[in-house]
Amino acid sequence: MSAMPALKLSRPADDAVAGALAEIRAALGDRLSTVAAVREQHGKDESYHAAAAPDGVAFAQSVEEVQAIVRACAKRDVPIVPYGTGTSLEGHVAALKGGVCIDVSQMNKVLRVGAEDLDVTVQPGVTRKQLNEHLRDKGLFFPIDPGADASLGGMTATRASGTNAVRYGTMRENVLSLQVVLADGRVIRTAKRAKKSAAGYDLTRLFVGSEGTLGVITEVTLRLYGIPEAISAAVCSFPSLAAAVDTVIQTIQAGVPIARIELLDEVQMRAVNSYSKFDYPETPTLFFEFHGTTSGVAEQIEMVEAIAGEKGGANFRWANKPEERSRLWEARHKAYYAALSLRPGCKGWATDVCVPISRLAECILETKKDIQESGLLAPIVGHVGDGNFHLSFLIDPNDPDEMRRAGAVKDKMVMRALSMDGTCTGEHGIGYGKIDLLQAELGDGVSVMRQIKQALDPKGIMNPGKIVRM
Amino acid sequence: MSAMPALKLSRPADDAVAGALAEIRAALGDRLSTVAAVREQHGKDESYHAAAAPDGVAFAQSVEEVQAIVRACAKRDVPIVPYGTGTSLEGHVAALKGGVCIDVSQMNKVLRVGAEDLDVTVQPGVTRKQLNEHLRDKGLFFPIDPGADASLGGMTATRASGTNAVRYGTMRENVLSLQVVLADGRVIRTAKRAKKSAAGYDLTRLFVGSEGTLGVITEVTLRLYGIPEAISAAVCSFPSLAAAVDTVIQTIQAGVPIARIELLDEVQMRAVNSYSKFDYPETPTLFFEFHGTTSGVAEQIEMVEAIAGEKGGANFRWANKPEERSRLWEARHKAYYAALSLRPGCKGWATDVCVPISRLAECILETKKDIQESGLLAPIVGHVGDGNFHLSFLIDPNDPDEMRRAGAVKDKMVMRALSMDGTCTGEHGIGYGKIDLLQAELGDGVSVMRQIKQALDPKGIMNPGKIVRM
Repeated sequence: MSAMPALKLSRPADDAVAGALAEIRAALGDRLSTVAAVREQHGKDESYHAAAAPDGVAFAQSVEEVQAIVRACAKRDVPIVPYGTGTSLEGHVAALKGGVCIDVSQMNKVLRVGAEDLDVTVQPGVTRKQLNEHLRDKGLFFPIDPGADASLGGMTATRASGTNAVRYGTMRENVLSLQVVLADGRVIRTAKRAKKSAAGYDLTRLFVGSEGTLGVITEVTLRLYGIPEAISAAVCSFPSLAAAVDTVIQTIQAGVPIARIELLDEVQMRAVNSYSKFDYPETPTLFFEFHGTTSGVAEQIEMVEAIAGEKGGANFRWANKPEERSRLWEARHKAYYAALSLRPGCKGWATDVCVPISRLAECILETKKDIQESGLLAPIVGHVGDGNFHLSFLIDPNDPDEMRRAGAVKDKMVMRALSMDGTCTGEHGIGYGKIDLLQAELGDGVSVMRQIKQALDPKGIMNPGKIVRM
Repeated sequence: MSAMPALKLSRPADDAVAGALAEIRAALGDRLSTVAAVREQHGKDESYHAAAAPDGVAFAQSVEEVQAIVRACAKRDVPIVPYGTGTSLEGHVAALKGGVCIDVSQMNKVLRVGAEDLDVTVQPGVTRKQLNEHLRDKGLFFPIDPGADASLGGMTATRASGTNAVRYGTMRENVLSLQVVLADGRVIRTAKRAKKSAAGYDLTRLFVGSEGTLGVITEVTLRLYGIPEAISAAVCSFPSLAAAVDTVIQTIQAGVPIARIELLDEVQMRAVNSYSKFDYPETPTLFFEFHGTTSGVAEQIEMVEAIAGEKGGANFRWANKPEERSRLWEARHKAYYAALSLRPGCKGWATDVCVPISRLAECILETKKDIQESGLLAPIVGHVGDGNFHLSFLIDPNDPDEMRRAGAVKDKMVMRALSMDGTCTGEHGIGYGKIDLLQAELGDGVSVMRQIKQALDPKGIMNPGKIVRM
């Protein structure tokens, strides 16, 4: 599905590209780069998908510059690919038709913090860690944490989530308003800063998750939260995957406002032990984090210990101090690198699905069976409170047979998730890697997406070849 | 702004309407009504806006029937207006160009309850009270509560919220997936049932709040919540509006997961006392509700009492038992009828705005000054945890000067809210009543809405004249 998609798409004429680059150079000077290494770096994300370099990379510093770039491209039908940190996982930044990459990493100012309103406005290149550094002495934080230190523009564009989503929601719930440069160079704001609104179509949510295919995000207003009075973390081992997942289901049903509840399977725990020198039991394991008042956290812990105990959960390890929590979470945060260490020299191929939580154990267990039958190694980690899990194939990308087997397991996993009323991607997005699976998921819904894309980007210049084929 | 808008829109040809009605009658039999009283009732909502009767009312019982009706209309360019309970407030159901009203009140089945997944799928005619009755013995509830016992299809279409939104969000956060009949008769599902997804454009959120202008909602999948172990309610009087609002701001900032926090101004409290025979102090008053575990609620109460005390809040009255809580909330729930009783024979003209909470006190106080200067009576109630407040003018609709003065105060309030980065409507929607104010709020954003409308409803038959002018 991912083999050389670039070949199928027609590139703009060379003189059109040259004209756009000349116009952009006149505006940005040496902040337009056509150096091969820079172009290649910007055409590649962190996935196994084939990269495709743009013809030039424009380092914009303002919305006016983004506008100028878009206009220079629009008048010549030259494609535009927005770029934050390049940490996406489904080929989102590959310039499948060439064109101009707009790198927003220099638009990295926190423009306004509204402590009373619990919101903040940032430029799109601000990363989540940078924002949280900025907020720390104000007692506030922004909870959404995909693994990478991604840009907030990119996280908006891909509807990112991560470990805290079970309590705080995803970018869908946490973006209040956007400034966007449209395909024709117009600038809009999608909403005012009010916490709720019934004012017409939800343009904010339309651009959250649009992956640069409808416009370039140039400003993001986000919700913030007070840093909790108490934070406590724990690890608990389970006799089986079903026991771990049942613990999650009952925790959610009991209304425990758990902040994080993460599953690592026995393969992943083996990797964690060997990589980070832990001595956890190598069985399905849950990592928990509790946020609240001191007594509220104590009560949450009591409830979850009781639920886990009933399901055979054992060996609870607790961490309350920040440095202990960091050490505990290190196992989870380094899961991907730990997994890679299981097979030295391999590459990781990460994919994810999300299903109704009642079907989660079944979906994971059947997928594990497929992995075993395929002869591949593929640890599983999951944001299981949301029914979302990830699988990382540890593969040799130069072995076509391994690639084929991995692709077959992935496709089967996605079709299984769809049959359980789940989605082909909980948080990695579509890019060009899951474009056919999106069709399998939503059918005629995709034709509605195509109508919207056609309406807002009639020339098809905004990140072409992603989400929908035109 | 609301004077006879129907005159500006051209109606379809009489034989087109007759043809559509004949085709629908062949499918629905006597569930198509052209009786004048039925048509008139369906062209009128609960607002002061001019009504406009459709040419016929079709009582659909299935998605297939909705499809048949839409196709019969689409092929003849006959308008379609979906109808739930007719409790909207901005002229949403007025058939401005005539055409066929699709009444979904007979599509009132709860199709599936997912107790493990905390979700439910309903037909659009199920009302929120009906759903909560259905859920009660399962220990689950659906929290969104606009004043009226509205249909869940209508609540979805208008992005409804209400008193619980500060904790549980609005329809935006609580709709998981929709089935929709599009303007050309195709049926789509907007999403699978997974709690989160990064699978392409957020079609669910596009239809939530689209007010019937993009399609007819025929199935709604919603999030549910466990009924809390403990619920406690309280009323507290404040020396000033600013003191009450400051209490709200500090409560939210402190991270108290308050379920309801409602403001009634001194005019509204006077109405409440006289209408429901209470003896509350006639000063700005907050109504609270706390949900959680027994000890969690006790802790929330302690925190809020401390904050309120600092701001001069006094005379706390508590209610823990269900019947006591009902009595306490009666004052809030009957606020509108109580207000009407302040001026016997008057009509109510309700409108709302929503602003960042840091500007809420200022926005309310300046609006109250305008009300005073206008010589009108207009009590204020607010879902103040979200920065949302309502104002009900008590007017004689046959007095053009009163209507003009009320309109002027409303427009000034909206423009003030916009200047504070707020929205022209927190929860009532646009309909045709706020179509110009939406333009004032979002400018070019409205042109994006128009492009979307044009793409999905090129003939302009879906609830024409609402949200955007074509």
